[in-house]
Amino acid sequence: MRKLTYGAAVSLDGYIAGPGEALDWLRWSDDARALSATSWKGVDTLLMGRKTYEFAARSGGGGAGSKSRLGTFIFSRTMDSAPEGADLVRDDAVGFVRSMKAQPGGDIILMGGGELAGSLIEGGVVDEIGLNLHPVLLGGGAPMFAGIGGQTWLELVEARPIAKGCVWLLYRPTA
Amino acid sequence: MRKLTYGAAVSLDGYIAGPGEALDWLRWSDDARALSATSWKGVDTLLMGRKTYEFAARSGGGGAGSKSRLGTFIFSRTMDSAPEGADLVRDDAVGFVRSMKAQPGGDIILMGGGELAGSLIEGGVVDEIGLNLHPVLLGGGAPMFAGIGGQTWLELVEARPIAKGCVWLLYRPTA
Repeated sequence: MRKLTYGAAVSLDGYIAGPGEALDWLRWSDDARALSATSWKGVDTLLMGRKTYEFAARSGGGGAGSKSRLGTFIFSRTMDSAPEGADLVRDDAVGFVRSMKAQPGGDIILMGGGELAGSLIEGGVVDEIGLNLHPVLLGGGAPMFAGIGGQTWLELVEARPIAKGCVWLLYRPTA
Repeated sequence: MRKLTYGAAVSLDGYIAGPGEALDWLRWSDDARALSATSWKGVDTLLMGRKTYEFAARSGGGGAGSKSRLGTFIFSRTMDSAPEGADLVRDDAVGFVRSMKAQPGGDIILMGGGELAGSLIEGGVVDEIGLNLHPVLLGGGAPMFAGIGGQTWLELVEARPIAKGCVWLLYRPTA
């Protein structure tokens, strides 16, 4: 079964981007680089919501779209057609991902997308959740978790301080 | 100078109480007990917002009000008078707390109160922020941090896994 990971750098108050999509608070380090490299190893497919896709496109790509060798799936109920180099998933995100995971292929990363993340976590198709918890309060922005409808328990796999005051947290949803 | 600590058990999505003030997700342990005992050592004063006070009163006290030997200060712009055994602070929470910290006395704990916490943190009067991060997503409720108006950086003091999948995080706001 292909592994689906949801990972993000997140502020202590739970935002993966600040107001106005601000990312100027991100603290890069050798630790973060090593964790990122581990996360991306064996990955051949990217999932993201429309907002994350549009942000990535505005920011000049970053893995999304035609220049990437990764399969890219964009989840949106409102987009008319898939951007070049990507596939569009219009509905039943959980069913689509469950089916994708049962097919042969590499591992899968879910990028950004608080509500998409929430529905996939609740739908039981996310295998790991990694947080690079940054020592900052942002006060607003794009939440890491949204659209969670009820208590969702996780198993703590790892928790350790890394460089620049960040903390690496790894969880697995419990069945 | 008296130390002011803001501490809470918090879900991974940042809530100190779930929808409907739910606290049924709290995981008590010897580790949590030891951390709590350390936090309360030397404390003689409690600060809380109106909502936290009303919740504590409904729940049968828990340290708030006349039965406590702790000085209790309730911050509210809408309450008419202080409940028995407590003092009411109507405005300039930051100035009031700054002045309180300069007076002789024991340490101070801020309970609950996302917006009160946010304003006191931004006002630079909170010395330590402790989180007992629980491995659960609640999807809504009372946020640990609210009313933060801009990027507020913290120094990581401690991060370690404790019992039952929880993680203890301790921060100091940077000047």
